[in-house]
Amino acid sequence: MPVISRRGKDAYTSPIRHLGPYADEAKKNGKHVFHLNIGNPDIQTPALALAKVREAATESNMVPYSPSKGFTSYRKKLVGYYEKFGAKDLSYEDIIITNGASEGILFSMFSCLDAGDEVIIPEPFYAIYNAFSYVSGVKLVAITSTIETGYALPSPQEFERYITPRTKAIFICNPNNPTGCVYSQQELEQLGAIVKKHDLFLFVDEVYREFSYEEEFYSVLRLKGLDDHVVVIDSISKRFSSCGARVGAIISKNSQILDNVNKYAEFRLSPPHFGQILAEATLDVGPAYIEGVKEEYVRRRDYLIERLSNMDEVICKKPKGAFYLLAKLPIDDGVKFCKWLLTDFEYKGSTVMLAPASGFYATPGLGLQEVRIAYVLKEEHLKGAMDCLEVAIRTYPGKTAIISNEMAQKIVQY
Amino acid sequence: MPVISRRGKDAYTSPIRHLGPYADEAKKNGKHVFHLNIGNPDIQTPALALAKVREAATESNMVPYSPSKGFTSYRKKLVGYYEKFGAKDLSYEDIIITNGASEGILFSMFSCLDAGDEVIIPEPFYAIYNAFSYVSGVKLVAITSTIETGYALPSPQEFERYITPRTKAIFICNPNNPTGCVYSQQELEQLGAIVKKHDLFLFVDEVYREFSYEEEFYSVLRLKGLDDHVVVIDSISKRFSSCGARVGAIISKNSQILDNVNKYAEFRLSPPHFGQILAEATLDVGPAYIEGVKEEYVRRRDYLIERLSNMDEVICKKPKGAFYLLAKLPIDDGVKFCKWLLTDFEYKGSTVMLAPASGFYATPGLGLQEVRIAYVLKEEHLKGAMDCLEVAIRTYPGKTAIISNEMAQKIVQY
Repeated sequence: MPVISRRGKDAYTSPIRHLGPYADEAKKNGKHVFHLNIGNPDIQTPALALAKVREAATESNMVPYSPSKGFTSYRKKLVGYYEKFGAKDLSYEDIIITNGASEGILFSMFSCLDAGDEVIIPEPFYAIYNAFSYVSGVKLVAITSTIETGYALPSPQEFERYITPRTKAIFICNPNNPTGCVYSQQELEQLGAIVKKHDLFLFVDEVYREFSYEEEFYSVLRLKGLDDHVVVIDSISKRFSSCGARVGAIISKNSQILDNVNKYAEFRLSPPHFGQILAEATLDVGPAYIEGVKEEYVRRRDYLIERLSNMDEVICKKPKGAFYLLAKLPIDDGVKFCKWLLTDFEYKGSTVMLAPASGFYATPGLGLQEVRIAYVLKEEHLKGAMDCLEVAIRTYPGKTAIISNEMAQKIVQY
Repeated sequence: MPVISRRGKDAYTSPIRHLGPYADEAKKNGKHVFHLNIGNPDIQTPALALAKVREAATESNMVPYSPSKGFTSYRKKLVGYYEKFGAKDLSYEDIIITNGASEGILFSMFSCLDAGDEVIIPEPFYAIYNAFSYVSGVKLVAITSTIETGYALPSPQEFERYITPRTKAIFICNPNNPTGCVYSQQELEQLGAIVKKHDLFLFVDEVYREFSYEEEFYSVLRLKGLDDHVVVIDSISKRFSSCGARVGAIISKNSQILDNVNKYAEFRLSPPHFGQILAEATLDVGPAYIEGVKEEYVRRRDYLIERLSNMDEVICKKPKGAFYLLAKLPIDDGVKFCKWLLTDFEYKGSTVMLAPASGFYATPGLGLQEVRIAYVLKEEHLKGAMDCLEVAIRTYPGKTAIISNEMAQKIVQY
């Protein structure tokens, strides 16, 4: 038998998705599983956008390749969308459509960075970034932020301390998955100054842009004097509840970057046809849709926070954006706990699936007691999920104390 | 300004797609362009499959992630499809759905091969393979086949001559893009023996499986004793005229390979929702559809061959499969010629876009006088395209003689 590749055997595995088989098994055994482990919302996709898909499948009897960069009509229309968030002098040529944000991140890394280059990133961060770092050979250098400080963006000085001759970029997610933080204009301007001073790229994953609940979202597309530095990664998955459309985008005013991105885009020929039709149609969806979705997420968040704050020895902070929160639980190891929930636990015929947070840290040993909870289900399901969690924490055989004393405060409003 | 990556700057560019801007310019100037440069067929997608997309966009109001491996229902149904081509004891777990064959090839390389590993491949080959070799760092070692021998599969002895300690795989496309060759059972069994003897992987791109015009297609899934070696790459793009669906598959009975593929599949979360709905529905399309499409391609092929055989100093062979042919023209350089067709040539308000064949060879200097013609347009358009080509060859400033004398024969039936 031929020997398979080292890079295949050693490839990063997703802490979010690798519990999947246990969930399948639980369901096969008749258990209901509340999925709070993945950002796959149960919100309805805009009816208008689905109608456009139906129309496209009626009026045309072909499903051809699109241009590698995506439909030109869609790219042109996106300019107006980003202008609403303060982007100035943007052209459709500054936008390339990707297969979701996933491909957007990978292509950005390929286009800007060589293997061995370093990227500074605050941890915890969206676990899948590790996968793209693995594929591209780029080294993610993590600055740890903690639940005690509300996972605040590290200070400019802290970022500077991590800069080496190999540093090529800073990478943030705003609003943040998994912390729910939203970074302020001032914080982003300070970060922009660092980026400029050290001649770095600034990658910003803005897929949760629409979900800032307390203050106006500030896009890095508004930062002045940073056109050559800023690369925004976007996706319609979250804001239009269209994860399966697989449509994202890379936005940058640095034409060298987009020339490179285009080469990688040509390799895979074309983004998906129906996904792009859906995506283009979302731009005609009125603001009431997003307002309604935001209100729904705020309700869900507030419900979760209330429930968690009533559980003994659970620590969490009220997130200001996206639809995730990190909770610190009195458990030995989130991976074991999340697996146990699926294999050994049941309450009223149900269980809850969560994402162990250790996978969101680059530093080994961090996040062991934390889990990420995605509030992507409607309140009655969140209730069922929280009922499960409450009982599970009491009965889990690996129950421990919460380690630090400062954490006695339960819900910290920051 | 930060320095962009070497791997971005040096990335392979597609010889098929990089003429695109010249075509756009020509169209902007009012010229009609017959697109024979890319395998984007004008055949109708099955109505039944489009109806399923409409239904899905009506009955469900969500567009969620699918499992990373693709819809389980689709994978199960595909087993029956491959069984029709002689695959035995296949399970749905031997199949992972990909974003087109493109992703299938890349994931196969990542999963089986490390950077620096060698893959033997007959040239000319589908140009985009170079891109995946570039991204994965795998070295494609080409065995040249020529128009004079009808691009026949090199003999087992020739393959063996190219095997080194770094050789990890043999890679073929059957039916072949760009040559139109279809490999026989005997040829494939001989190749299988080599693969077994030297403990290699055998990658076979079978996306044109349905388009074998003269004889029954033989899938490598039928080869005995090679379960651990064979990796088939598939796609619905060509057989159901659904290039924009972006749905392909990797099929292998080697579970180690599929475990690795799954890791890469998880990185990008999910194949496209609507594309998979379309793809699953194509499995209910009766055989009359494919029969009709095949007849249409045979008519187009025969028309092209007739026209080309009447052009002075044009050499081509009648392809037995897929929907491409390579033609040798009395020109200095196919890249220049194809560009000139778009920028400087016009006949009755039209021109034709072709793919320069040099991009299909790994060996520098080969294929300069060849172009690939995709017979993906209906006959009236093929007529317009051939009228253009006929005049273009006479008037092209870089006209030369066909180099070798043995080529005096025009259409060689092999």
